[in-house]
Amino acid sequence: MAGNSIGQFFRVTSFGESHGVALGGVIDGMPPGIFLDETDIQHDLNRRRPGKSRYTTQRRELDIVEILSGTFKGLTTGTSIGLIIKNTDFRSQDYNEIQHVYRPGHADYTYDCKYGYRDYRGGGRSSARETTVRVAAGAIAKKYLSKYGVEVRGFLSQIGDICLELKDLDEIEKNDFFCPDINRLEELDVLIRKLKKSGDSLGAKITVIAKNVPPGLGEPVFDRLDADLAHAFMSINAVKGVEIGDGFSVISKYGSENRDEITSKGFMSNHAGGILGGISSGQDIIAHIAFKPTSSIRIPGRTINNVGKLVEIVTKGRHDPCVGIRAVPIVEAMMAIVLMDHWLRQQAQCIDVFQKYLK
Amino acid sequence: MAGNSIGQFFRVTSFGESHGVALGGVIDGMPPGIFLDETDIQHDLNRRRPGKSRYTTQRRELDIVEILSGTFKGLTTGTSIGLIIKNTDFRSQDYNEIQHVYRPGHADYTYDCKYGYRDYRGGGRSSARETTVRVAAGAIAKKYLSKYGVEVRGFLSQIGDICLELKDLDEIEKNDFFCPDINRLEELDVLIRKLKKSGDSLGAKITVIAKNVPPGLGEPVFDRLDADLAHAFMSINAVKGVEIGDGFSVISKYGSENRDEITSKGFMSNHAGGILGGISSGQDIIAHIAFKPTSSIRIPGRTINNVGKLVEIVTKGRHDPCVGIRAVPIVEAMMAIVLMDHWLRQQAQCIDVFQKYLK
Amino acid sequence: MAGNSIGQFFRVTSFGESHGVALGGVIDGMPPGIFLDETDIQHDLNRRRPGKSRYTTQRRELDIVEILSGTFKGLTTGTSIGLIIKNTDFRSQDYNEIQHVYRPGHADYTYDCKYGYRDYRGGGRSSARETTVRVAAGAIAKKYLSKYGVEVRGFLSQIGDICLELKDLDEIEKNDFFCPDINRLEELDVLIRKLKKSGDSLGAKITVIAKNVPPGLGEPVFDRLDADLAHAFMSINAVKGVEIGDGFSVISKYGSENRDEITSKGFMSNHAGGILGGISSGQDIIAHIAFKPTSSIRIPGRTINNVGKLVEIVTKGRHDPCVGIRAVPIVEAMMAIVLMDHWLRQQAQCIDVFQKYLK
Amino acid sequence: MAGNSIGQFFRVTSFGESHGVALGGVIDGMPPGIFLDETDIQHDLNRRRPGKSRYTTQRRELDIVEILSGTFKGLTTGTSIGLIIKNTDFRSQDYNEIQHVYRPGHADYTYDCKYGYRDYRGGGRSSARETTVRVAAGAIAKKYLSKYGVEVRGFLSQIGDICLELKDLDEIEKNDFFCPDINRLEELDVLIRKLKKSGDSLGAKITVIAKNVPPGLGEPVFDRLDADLAHAFMSINAVKGVEIGDGFSVISKYGSENRDEITSKGFMSNHAGGILGGISSGQDIIAHIAFKPTSSIRIPGRTINNVGKLVEIVTKGRHDPCVGIRAVPIVEAMMAIVLMDHWLRQQAQCIDVFQKYLK
Repeated sequence: MAGNSIGQFFRVTSFGESHGVALGGVIDGMPPGIFLDETDIQHDLNRRRPGKSRYTTQRRELDIVEILSGTFKGLTTGTSIGLIIKNTDFRSQDYNEIQHVYRPGHADYTYDCKYGYRDYRGGGRSSARETTVRVAAGAIAKKYLSKYGVEVRGFLSQIGDICLELKDLDEIEKNDFFCPDINRLEELDVLIRKLKKSGDSLGAKITVIAKNVPPGLGEPVFDRLDADLAHAFMSINAVKGVEIGDGFSVISKYGSENRDEITSKGFMSNHAGGILGGISSGQDIIAHIAFKPTSSIRIPGRTINNVGKLVEIVTKGRHDPCVGIRAVPIVEAMMAIVLMDHWLRQQAQCIDVFQKYLK
Repeated sequence: MAGNSIGQFFRVTSFGESHGVALGGVIDGMPPGIFLDETDIQHDLNRRRPGKSRYTTQRRELDIVEILSGTFKGLTTGTSIGLIIKNTDFRSQDYNEIQHVYRPGHADYTYDCKYGYRDYRGGGRSSARETTVRVAAGAIAKKYLSKYGVEVRGFLSQIGDICLELKDLDEIEKNDFFCPDINRLEELDVLIRKLKKSGDSLGAKITVIAKNVPPGLGEPVFDRLDADLAHAFMSINAVKGVEIGDGFSVISKYGSENRDEITSKGFMSNHAGGILGGISSGQDIIAHIAFKPTSSIRIPGRTINNVGKLVEIVTKGRHDPCVGIRAVPIVEAMMAIVLMDHWLRQQAQCIDVFQKYLK
Repeated sequence: MAGNSIGQFFRVTSFGESHGVALGGVIDGMPPGIFLDETDIQHDLNRRRPGKSRYTTQRRELDIVEILSGTFKGLTTGTSIGLIIKNTDFRSQDYNEIQHVYRPGHADYTYDCKYGYRDYRGGGRSSARETTVRVAAGAIAKKYLSKYGVEVRGFLSQIGDICLELKDLDEIEKNDFFCPDINRLEELDVLIRKLKKSGDSLGAKITVIAKNVPPGLGEPVFDRLDADLAHAFMSINAVKGVEIGDGFSVISKYGSENRDEITSKGFMSNHAGGILGGISSGQDIIAHIAFKPTSSIRIPGRTINNVGKLVEIVTKGRHDPCVGIRAVPIVEAMMAIVLMDHWLRQQAQCIDVFQKYLK
Repeated sequence: MAGNSIGQFFRVTSFGESHGVALGGVIDGMPPGIFLDETDIQHDLNRRRPGKSRYTTQRRELDIVEILSGTFKGLTTGTSIGLIIKNTDFRSQDYNEIQHVYRPGHADYTYDCKYGYRDYRGGGRSSARETTVRVAAGAIAKKYLSKYGVEVRGFLSQIGDICLELKDLDEIEKNDFFCPDINRLEELDVLIRKLKKSGDSLGAKITVIAKNVPPGLGEPVFDRLDADLAHAFMSINAVKGVEIGDGFSVISKYGSENRDEITSKGFMSNHAGGILGGISSGQDIIAHIAFKPTSSIRIPGRTINNVGKLVEIVTKGRHDPCVGIRAVPIVEAMMAIVLMDHWLRQQAQCIDVFQKYLK
């Protein structure tokens, strides 16, 4: 099918451009009888929202979500949920000059190759504004999963050469960086200021953990839980790498170190990141995602226009010095959407076994 | 849908267990009028085949593929292609003792959690023998893509701490390691012998490159080419990480370094790995995949049985000291399947634009 | 996947309830570079619109469609098209008394059985107001198909015992009944007046014809063109039967009468309705669809409430005496959506062969 | 996706040609822990088998099914079930002369238009031999559904002008016509003999009933139970019409007659055929399917060859004088597949509500 949907049973279909009238989507497959209103969604949208702090783009979008269907008197009805988020603060004139120019590191060139025509304003459909719909859908998934104690938590685990350890999940929401270590905030502040001053950008790593996921989620052999997570994360703008559990560090590990031995008290380690054979094991599910540095920077670069002529480009518009920071709620949303989808899939085929693991 | 299919238009559906009668599958969506017979497929199956060299498992399967439908007088007809590969050299008795025991690092535990019942012989459906069908399907995809000059080439780029550089694509097929550097073969030989002696295993990194891919493949926003590749690679047994282009190294890169500038001669670099905004750019598509060390090793480990009692386990059966080595044709197959699927998708929606890039 | 989508490549996903804020949907897979604006869609919405004539329900909805994405400067971009149609003239108070009562012939009872909870206002999601989105999506499909000369035309072919023959396609749009025979209008007028007076309703048959469809559309063996049409038509509210070509009358036909012989001038008849083996033959595609009489009538009936107690029901609200009449644009829309989907599917797999049939 | 699959969760993918090595398929999504072996399937294959009586084609296929995967020690494991049915009694030489000729009423012409190339032997993929896989998959679905008391029963309800009433479901299996009225067997015998003598064929109507289906199956708005049934039935070779419940007879019914009133004892009638708003109501699900007369007859007819030249054709090969008769198990299979798919879908989204209706 066409590419604007994700999930089989908890299915999210999205539309909208950066400078269009509105973004929105349809969430299909939400079970009935769940309390849901806009505030459930708005919380995560606010976490992702641009213009909140000096560390992110200054485009100021309120990102107010409106639920158009699928709930009645505050409860989901089981029918499809229509959502809309209006665009308000776009300045399309900033983009007139890129109308015929391919910004390096952006999708301008490939959209032209693919479609032969593109909405160049703010990147059109290739803009990360599209991720508002993901965050909204993820919030709905989280609402359902929370009934069963499942929690999805993301944080910034690296930016440039600064590696951040998970000290305290509770700190993450108290700072503008989704940083899990309160002692590193100043360092980050200095780094971002420097970046903004230089007009350059840096990459980042986001780590996401899902807690209290019951065992049994994931469908062999192609729709493994890890495979679907990799798909979901890699579909986020600017992502270039996905790891489950120990990821690339397993290459230089011995089998005797890496296999997670089990005792009657449970697993003795979690190198696998909570997934074995593509199926959740009941341990924490852990993934790491690499975001490239924003390609839109104030430092001049070479590119070509749509007739192949070399031109110099300096991005104007308003951009994040590190897109990874605001990506935390997006990553969480994708995790929640995938878990939710596999939850329903496990219910479909293996309900008798599954119910043993649900309270 | 249930999890044993991959692809939307070039759709591969697979079945079969390690010690069952046969493995097989259905390839749906192959264009008509393409020359195809078993030899096209057997070549790649032989590359993946166990028991070929002393560096891999000693299970000796001939992996003879039989095409049951979808071709007529040597040409594809456009109808679904049924394939079958019979199992011949299985020794189920080796597995009787794991009937009630969960091998650490394996899917035994999670299959039991998911389904409440499992075929424990040789890992059943969770065995990597399932990948024969992927390799067969990939060979069919390669056959089509080769008409347009697309080539998919994988190689071993790291095992343990030994990093291997791509010196010569032509060398890869001439050694038992899929090693791209002829000068490192002895080192690898020593390493594997040591591993086999110790009864342990090591992880590996496989790199895969697709050449001559036209621009325009990939469907925003969820079914991006990189997202579908990540899904396909992560669905292979033992994979724990996927990178597109520079992958995790982008985290510590500046935007000014990482964006691939363009001149009238084309892109000046390929940090992006040939994909921008989820769409192929016409550059080489490059991915790296991390394989964990085989969990089945001769070194005793702790685990539990299915009534929760602690037991010691020593894997018998016959296993690879490094699963990554034989994974090269599998990785290539997944790349080819994904490219083929997106090729057809691009033809569906954007044929007018696409044809400019096809000879 | 969840049930609010139709089509694989030209994919329509819909949301919205009868008395909700808005109805809407996402059309995914539309080729780029096609002229499209709201007027293309509004025309068909107006044809379906209630309250236009005295022969249909008096609910007066303007059914103004707004395109929220997927076009730029009047051309489609190839990205997903978001649509919204606001509800304006609903009177939910009319429905308070059916809150706990199951209207016979309606989905009230089965929605409660399925979801355990329902939006009872105006039938909620089960209302035929949902078909506005189908009509909008169909208009987009028609726009594309018209480039190739494909025309989709529906008409009223029977209501009660009045059978209407196709005399003149051009007359259909000139009367309020979509009647193809100008000489029968008065008869219809009398019939509907009588129905309205009695408070009862009647069933209807709609016939739809697609002209200039190239041969080759339809995917064996399950997604045959006729199978997908049957699915699409039967998914419309109140439909109880679908025929392709001669339909049920073939039961009493001999093979020697029914097979459509061919000469060098082409097919000598079209009993098959333009589809052989599930694939379009290049002849007119013809289907007939049976609509049941509206169940919402003013004549009292017996039913139960949600605690199983017998109650008498008299439908208030505003309803069509024959839902079939306004169904003509809906039937056309479903035909267009299915043709469009199969058009893209044929392009995907068999573009070389297909192009011979396109100008 | 490509067209050789049906179902979302209980997903059947099929392959095979009339004169190929074998037919087969993959059933994906079967719940684990169900007793299943070949005898469960063989029973229905034997009911469909050609060459059993003098009333059907004399091609004698044993249609022996082999399960290749997905079960272990007689129980399903939840993994994909691979099936194979070998072709044994084909006489391809009978078809040499149609190599370049399009049999009227057949798919020869449209396959050539679609694919540009076809396996002409016995109709290749367009042959009804493909339905063996459907029957096999349906038998698996029936096995699961029977756990909950669901029964699917089909019978011949009309052939030519002979209408057959359901007198006794138990009689159906005791005669070669699937006739539900023991008093009409001689009439049928005479009719078929006459047909065979004349070399002509007749159409037929099959009726199918599903008993004890719980309420709640069916997914608004596109994947309604009736819509998916219509799709499934219309995808069978030679089907030209599908009715749910009263079908086309509703056209001339008043709403006051047709709505099924309800009392505390339940529904007072079943004009709707057990489906309201696309969702099962708990009543019997009833459908009628129209099969056209076999186009392969001994009476000469006009057609063209693949260079457009007029030729006379007389079908040789071995064919059924009425394909409808052997279609009974196929129709049942499609009903069972669709019910099974929706069963799993209902479990996925609405398990809490659904369980009230399951013992």
